[in-house]
Amino acid sequence: MRSLVSRALLLSIVAHQLAFAQTAPASQPATLEGVPASTNVPGAQFPRINPDRSVTFRIHAPEAKFVGARIDSIYSGVRSDSGDWTIRTKPQVPGFHYYWLIIDSVRVNDPASETFYGTGKMTSGIEIPEPGVDFYDVKNVPHGDVRERWYFSKTTGTHRRAFVYTPPGYDRSRVRYPVLYLQHGGGEDERGWVQQGHVAAIMDNLIAEKKAKPMLVVMERGYAQRPRGASPPVTLAGGTSSTPPVPDRFAPMAAFPDVVITDLIPMIDSTYRTLTDRDHRAMAGLSMGGMQTFQTTLNHLDRFAWIGGFSGVGGGFGIPGAVPLDVKTSYNGVLADAAAFNRKVKLVWIGLGTAEPQRMHDGIIAFHKALESAGITHVYYESPGTAHEWQTWRRSLHEFAPLLF
Amino acid sequence: MRSLVSRALLLSIVAHQLAFAQTAPASQPATLEGVPASTNVPGAQFPRINPDRSVTFRIHAPEAKFVGARIDSIYSGVRSDSGDWTIRTKPQVPGFHYYWLIIDSVRVNDPASETFYGTGKMTSGIEIPEPGVDFYDVKNVPHGDVRERWYFSKTTGTHRRAFVYTPPGYDRSRVRYPVLYLQHGGGEDERGWVQQGHVAAIMDNLIAEKKAKPMLVVMERGYAQRPRGASPPVTLAGGTSSTPPVPDRFAPMAAFPDVVITDLIPMIDSTYRTLTDRDHRAMAGLSMGGMQTFQTTLNHLDRFAWIGGFSGVGGGFGIPGAVPLDVKTSYNGVLADAAAFNRKVKLVWIGLGTAEPQRMHDGIIAFHKALESAGITHVYYESPGTAHEWQTWRRSLHEFAPLLF
Repeated sequence: MRSLVSRALLLSIVAHQLAFAQTAPASQPATLEGVPASTNVPGAQFPRINPDRSVTFRIHAPEAKFVGARIDSIYSGVRSDSGDWTIRTKPQVPGFHYYWLIIDSVRVNDPASETFYGTGKMTSGIEIPEPGVDFYDVKNVPHGDVRERWYFSKTTGTHRRAFVYTPPGYDRSRVRYPVLYLQHGGGEDERGWVQQGHVAAIMDNLIAEKKAKPMLVVMERGYAQRPRGASPPVTLAGGTSSTPPVPDRFAPMAAFPDVVITDLIPMIDSTYRTLTDRDHRAMAGLSMGGMQTFQTTLNHLDRFAWIGGFSGVGGGFGIPGAVPLDVKTSYNGVLADAAAFNRKVKLVWIGLGTAEPQRMHDGIIAFHKALESAGITHVYYESPGTAHEWQTWRRSLHEFAPLLF
Repeated sequence: MRSLVSRALLLSIVAHQLAFAQTAPASQPATLEGVPASTNVPGAQFPRINPDRSVTFRIHAPEAKFVGARIDSIYSGVRSDSGDWTIRTKPQVPGFHYYWLIIDSVRVNDPASETFYGTGKMTSGIEIPEPGVDFYDVKNVPHGDVRERWYFSKTTGTHRRAFVYTPPGYDRSRVRYPVLYLQHGGGEDERGWVQQGHVAAIMDNLIAEKKAKPMLVVMERGYAQRPRGASPPVTLAGGTSSTPPVPDRFAPMAAFPDVVITDLIPMIDSTYRTLTDRDHRAMAGLSMGGMQTFQTTLNHLDRFAWIGGFSGVGGGFGIPGAVPLDVKTSYNGVLADAAAFNRKVKLVWIGLGTAEPQRMHDGIIAFHKALESAGITHVYYESPGTAHEWQTWRRSLHEFAPLLF
């Protein structure tokens, strides 16, 4: 009996030991610099964040002729006699960065790291702490839930997934809550705000400090195509309903505004205790999600009164054939009468990072200036020192959410 | 204005195009065999599942001397002139399989696939459909939510994460629900049942068919250590409270039963509308989670009345120094009086796959036989043709949940 039972779970134990092979008391030399990143898989000693915020990656690749890492730029590794490659970067900006390793021209994820859906595939990511900043950390405050919810979309003819943040106390109260629809960027998906963005920690902390009102936050897949053969009522970009069909390469998201209006909002309002009038519904998004936000809200001001663009604005897609922003005609002309618009819309909020790529930085500022010239009241925010990355968007949410409702 | 705005979101568009580069109408030759796996990242044409359930992987690695794939065993790839490597496997058993690629002796994930936390790190995974079987697919039935919930554990002194499935109708009803605590296996974490296991689809479908009662399902991290210096009240394995301390390599999960009893159950019962008596609380787990289930429930029968082991059972860890199952003394002797045990415990359920590794298979059957000899009433289930893998555990949950409450 003993031997049979004692052998019963051997494989399970092996799996377990595999999982924790690296959690044993570190046999690393005491001189190892820095600390393991919080985004490492449990027990992984690398990547390490050094005191100067440079990062050290390490991987065993004895047969490789070149090993490097791509983070803010590409860094070459150095090989040890045993075939371990060590790559040390320049100091990194605080926040979350996607990265990958390069082994003899093949882009691979770092086996020592968590992966995140970004750049159109699962990608390694690393969290660089920002000294003295903890608004996006999990703290000992009341926590809301982030709920994975599937629903059927008539627009796309498919089951789709959204994540829904419900605030602390939602389950025990009977009140209804306002809703923020919050979208990720291109190459990311509905997981972005939850995993890379730390949306739940940001909202929990703001609500605990009474800086933001309790609200639901809904994050949807964002990409949406009608079934083949269906006739698309095009309302994309800054165009009116008479806009010519968008180029094919934007087909993957052409139906998203209709998904929001026709499928998502009704599902959310019938599933959760929400306030369903436009004064209690906001939408914001980052980068591509910012474009989608302006496209969706400005064409449906009967549904939304609060609008946010984080490193992403309205006014045409910058592609041949799309209509650029014209305050007189774009979005069915809702911007033409600034006074009426300002009475109707409670908040337009535009944010960007000061270290964004120049063309993007200039373009967002141009949109800001265009609104300013047209007399459209709005808030303009600059995130100091951050690029087209999640630290800009975490800060944007942290600034934007307290202004809502 | 036009040029500024039109350049504004160029980077966003590039990211978007990156994300969808592969979703354009397939320019692949019409002769391409099989279909892309549902576990591929959007648009990826490989891996493909062929009609005979073999899998074809492909990766571009022009400088590599060897490329292979590890799934049920290791397969070698064949290089094309352009540096694409194609790897074709033998027919695979239906269900979810972890896999990885090997490039010149380095284990890497497949960039074309989703990744899943298993084998102690993020790992590629592939779903092989089972013809005619859809109990774990998302269908057009009422959906519950899977909620990500953080809470603070006094036992470990850390913030911990659990996923909580709430059934359809939970939000709109005022009734209280029974709770199933459901654990993953070694090298996996609290995401396992949600992502690999499809727990929400299984429960939604069972509840829609009125085959299972609406219930909450709680999935916790599973690994738990006391802060350094704290004195551990050891109740691990099959042992009594007089069991000697477990070997160091099991320290990473030594505190889990205390987390469940002291931290997790009180948090769940104070946060959600639960039925809090033992008759409405179940626990089950797979592999390592099965061991943890017997360890937790049999030492706390005042809290649990329903027990399930999926390819994982009680009775010692099969490691030197641990106490093997002794029906007279193990778990404080709760098995010694079979009649009393059978009156007290509403269900003991043991399941395994017929294709599990021989030693594990034999060991689980030995535990089953030991219970049988001792007169402990229990259900014994065999999953035909499946190994120590998620298809066995999905089927186990599908068999087990309808018997609860």
